[in-house]
Amino acid sequence: MGKQKVFLDKLLHTCHIRNLLIRQALAECLGTLILVMFGCGSVAQLVLSNGSHGLFLTVNFAFGFAATLGILVCGQVSGGHLNPAVTFALCILGREPWRKFPIYFLFQTLGAFLGSGIVYGMYHDALWEFNPGALRVLGDNATAGIFATYPSTHLTMINGFFDQMIGTAALIVCILAIVDPYNNPIPHGLEAFTVGFVVLVIGLSMGFNSGYAVNPARDLGPRLFTAMAGWGAEVFTAQSYWFLVPIFAPFLGTVFGVLVYQFMVGFHVEVEAREKAQNEAERMNLTNINSKEMA
Amino acid sequence: MGKQKVFLDKLLHTCHIRNLLIRQALAECLGTLILVMFGCGSVAQLVLSNGSHGLFLTVNFAFGFAATLGILVCGQVSGGHLNPAVTFALCILGREPWRKFPIYFLFQTLGAFLGSGIVYGMYHDALWEFNPGALRVLGDNATAGIFATYPSTHLTMINGFFDQMIGTAALIVCILAIVDPYNNPIPHGLEAFTVGFVVLVIGLSMGFNSGYAVNPARDLGPRLFTAMAGWGAEVFTAQSYWFLVPIFAPFLGTVFGVLVYQFMVGFHVEVEAREKAQNEAERMNLTNINSKEMA
Amino acid sequence: MGKQKVFLDKLLHTCHIRNLLIRQALAECLGTLILVMFGCGSVAQLVLSNGSHGLFLTVNFAFGFAATLGILVCGQVSGGHLNPAVTFALCILGREPWRKFPIYFLFQTLGAFLGSGIVYGMYHDALWEFNPGALRVLGDNATAGIFATYPSTHLTMINGFFDQMIGTAALIVCILAIVDPYNNPIPHGLEAFTVGFVVLVIGLSMGFNSGYAVNPARDLGPRLFTAMAGWGAEVFTAQSYWFLVPIFAPFLGTVFGVLVYQFMVGFHVEVEAREKAQNEAERMNLTNINSKEMA
Amino acid sequence: MGKQKVFLDKLLHTCHIRNLLIRQALAECLGTLILVMFGCGSVAQLVLSNGSHGLFLTVNFAFGFAATLGILVCGQVSGGHLNPAVTFALCILGREPWRKFPIYFLFQTLGAFLGSGIVYGMYHDALWEFNPGALRVLGDNATAGIFATYPSTHLTMINGFFDQMIGTAALIVCILAIVDPYNNPIPHGLEAFTVGFVVLVIGLSMGFNSGYAVNPARDLGPRLFTAMAGWGAEVFTAQSYWFLVPIFAPFLGTVFGVLVYQFMVGFHVEVEAREKAQNEAERMNLTNINSKEMA
Repeated sequence: MGKQKVFLDKLLHTCHIRNLLIRQALAECLGTLILVMFGCGSVAQLVLSNGSHGLFLTVNFAFGFAATLGILVCGQVSGGHLNPAVTFALCILGREPWRKFPIYFLFQTLGAFLGSGIVYGMYHDALWEFNPGALRVLGDNATAGIFATYPSTHLTMINGFFDQMIGTAALIVCILAIVDPYNNPIPHGLEAFTVGFVVLVIGLSMGFNSGYAVNPARDLGPRLFTAMAGWGAEVFTAQSYWFLVPIFAPFLGTVFGVLVYQFMVGFHVEVEAREKAQNEAERMNLTNINSKEMA
Repeated sequence: MGKQKVFLDKLLHTCHIRNLLIRQALAECLGTLILVMFGCGSVAQLVLSNGSHGLFLTVNFAFGFAATLGILVCGQVSGGHLNPAVTFALCILGREPWRKFPIYFLFQTLGAFLGSGIVYGMYHDALWEFNPGALRVLGDNATAGIFATYPSTHLTMINGFFDQMIGTAALIVCILAIVDPYNNPIPHGLEAFTVGFVVLVIGLSMGFNSGYAVNPARDLGPRLFTAMAGWGAEVFTAQSYWFLVPIFAPFLGTVFGVLVYQFMVGFHVEVEAREKAQNEAERMNLTNINSKEMA
Repeated sequence: MGKQKVFLDKLLHTCHIRNLLIRQALAECLGTLILVMFGCGSVAQLVLSNGSHGLFLTVNFAFGFAATLGILVCGQVSGGHLNPAVTFALCILGREPWRKFPIYFLFQTLGAFLGSGIVYGMYHDALWEFNPGALRVLGDNATAGIFATYPSTHLTMINGFFDQMIGTAALIVCILAIVDPYNNPIPHGLEAFTVGFVVLVIGLSMGFNSGYAVNPARDLGPRLFTAMAGWGAEVFTAQSYWFLVPIFAPFLGTVFGVLVYQFMVGFHVEVEAREKAQNEAERMNLTNINSKEMA
Repeated sequence: MGKQKVFLDKLLHTCHIRNLLIRQALAECLGTLILVMFGCGSVAQLVLSNGSHGLFLTVNFAFGFAATLGILVCGQVSGGHLNPAVTFALCILGREPWRKFPIYFLFQTLGAFLGSGIVYGMYHDALWEFNPGALRVLGDNATAGIFATYPSTHLTMINGFFDQMIGTAALIVCILAIVDPYNNPIPHGLEAFTVGFVVLVIGLSMGFNSGYAVNPARDLGPRLFTAMAGWGAEVFTAQSYWFLVPIFAPFLGTVFGVLVYQFMVGFHVEVEAREKAQNEAERMNLTNINSKEMA
């Protein structure tokens, strides 16, 4: 095992990337890849098997636990956002520097792109048996919906925008509560699991309108992939440029979610925690003075 | 980031509410909003998609995990009751002051009202496509059941009352065991998850009769919303004023649940814990006396 | 709150039962009641709704999480066996005194009896609408299977006995691993959840033959109830006295499970732990001798 | 209880196996037995009940939680690999000695063989009622797929190889993140549960092509069993010797998964942790020097 150890050590130092932001971007990329690979994979399994190997419920479970696993893999390095909306929320609150936002957005989208590529490769035969001749974006046997989201026929643009906004706001309220440093409701180390439950519940209750993207990277990356892999530009133009909704609505929802959480819970626990710390400090100060006087 | 920090700090002190009870009421309101938004949202998804995007099982999961998330969001501030029956049980046992009960009840109902409003907004288009012309309370394609509970046709009033009573009693027995300070069966910080499992199991086994409200606020708030949003007064008069059952039966069930838990487990673990503490104290006293005598 | 406190304290001392074994028996009774109330309740929901409010999967979830909740409620007092087979296994290994076995068996059966009574009361109207005229034990629309287990038509007596034996052995192997004091694979406090997963998995994979009783009390108690509540003596005589199988096969399975676990894992971790402790003791002894010699 | 204690102690010392590797191999055997018994048991329940007692989702749950339970039972002794691909990954990284690999592979396959034997015994009557006359490997009512995996008709050999490779790579990336000593994303003691979620998610999203073996032992052991139990040599020759794919593709996927995880996350957290430890050491050194100089 001696030689192996030496080789591994050498590899370690050769491949180590010194720039922290690049390391974090790579980790985010891998995390989002895992989210999309498992999440869109489960949609592929449901659609391509005509429902014999899946339910809408299995898609909900897959996206939820895929979020958990994605966060577990990259969380120690990059924080495990997997979603530009989450990065945006943390930047608004001053917990992440704004310069991280574009880098994370880019690499999250890249990870989602790669993840959908893996799903395409894995279900290549099944896809082409399901869509013999040409891959379809809309209508019966459409397969573009495996990768990016498309609205149901009943949905108007306004309702769709509201749907994505509320979905993201709900996500952000729950995530802020989970990671709030002043409001620690869960044991350390279970954050990833709890975020997975949030994604699961959003899928169980907000998935019917347009498939709960609530994540610009998760939607844009796979859409780019499908445009390039054979579904064509229709993935962007379909349903009056719907693709813009899951890119912009989530950021508005993020602002809304941050406001709701901070005004109804966040600010109050923060002030309370600070006052407690200040009282503590004052008391210690007083004790010091007393000791001095007594001395 | 300097300016942002200053702005956030200023906002913090402007918006901070000094009154603890109002802060707690706000938190309960947000928690119950989350419970109803996700819970009733999943019923909407099931009903409006004609079962293609949901099962009764997904509704059970959604209400269970929605309870978990609601508790996580507000638990550190208000205790995370989300249910007047739970507040009532803790008041009976002297763990919460009685004056909290009406305030919590009011804000929990308000949260449930707002939560169902969000569901209505989110599924506005789907609702009006499902019920073209007029929103229906009863019969085929009824949509009022998305928000409040209505009994199945087989159910008599007496059986319905018993159903709500037993459901709430089961909920209270389990919750009392989870939060009993003398009987700590689970690691600190997992209470919210365990309560979620309780709600899930109640839905899996007690949901067929009338949809397991077991929570006066969760039923009354959305019912008020539907009365105002277009379903009309029929939501109150339907099925011989059924709406009274999920308001009053849960409180009777709470009394019953408190008695069962306390007589079969609670009192005994409390006496034991106290005796242990007393013995400890006596031994230390004895040791002190001994040391003195020896000195 | 002063008067309330005094009243509660008085109640506490009036109702406290001094005998530990009776307290433990009461707790086991409540725990098994919860197991059967939720478990059989979910079967009732599945059967009586003709599958609209349940799946076999929901029954699996309900029994699994009901086991978790039952253990949580009574575990601190009685250990949370809920199953005479578990009590039997712990007696074999000398971790519980044998005199507990008959008492626990009795009260577990009583709890299961009461739990099925609650299910009967809760679904009274639905049961009589499903079986108008007379409650049926076998054939189409049979409802006795909601409470106790009956074999599928394909099952012979020998295969049925083997089924119950293996199911219980699997349960016991997993439970022994979870509670083995020398092999602590999970964080303290998560035992109840893990046992719930064991019960869930047994239902997912061993439920088709005869409904995975794997628990003499869970089967006998409800069967007694159905015999008395209107299904009649047929519940015992049906299918060549099948009721004897889920009473006796589990105990044989317990012996088998204890042997498998102890020979393949248990004995080895125990010897290892003891040797480690002995080495520790010897080293400390040696240090003492050395210190003396040096002095 | 005196005699019982003496007897148990005697048994303990008679049966204890001194050789650590044999003890570990036995534990792996039991763990893999549990994985296959519950996992393939759930497939049997789904297939033999014609879908009345199962869904593809229940199979996913069963394999996931069966992995959890298998790891819990044997993890403290052998590490709980249950999968030669996992052993292989840990050997590549120098965390397990290479000589363990063939022994573990052998006993994992043996455990899978025994586990499928138990499933066969348990569902003996149901199997022969489902396949009267002769057990079938392929076509309608085929039952060989209960035990080993067979590709869907749409799958080519190349896509099948890629499917098993990617599935195993995904498994390995997630497992490496979970057990990485430098990247500890979850609380100690929850590894088994998290690995269970990984297996669950793989089943939800990668199960349609060929049933996600992603484990050479889990596929080979049951296949051997079916060859001997009456399905005949066709289990090996079917579909152009498909059985070779789930044996070899997983190892290639392991190499790929190790590379991806190490290059994108693993190496970086390791270097960081080492540098931190080194800085700590240097600072302490410096302090020592300073103290000396000051003295």
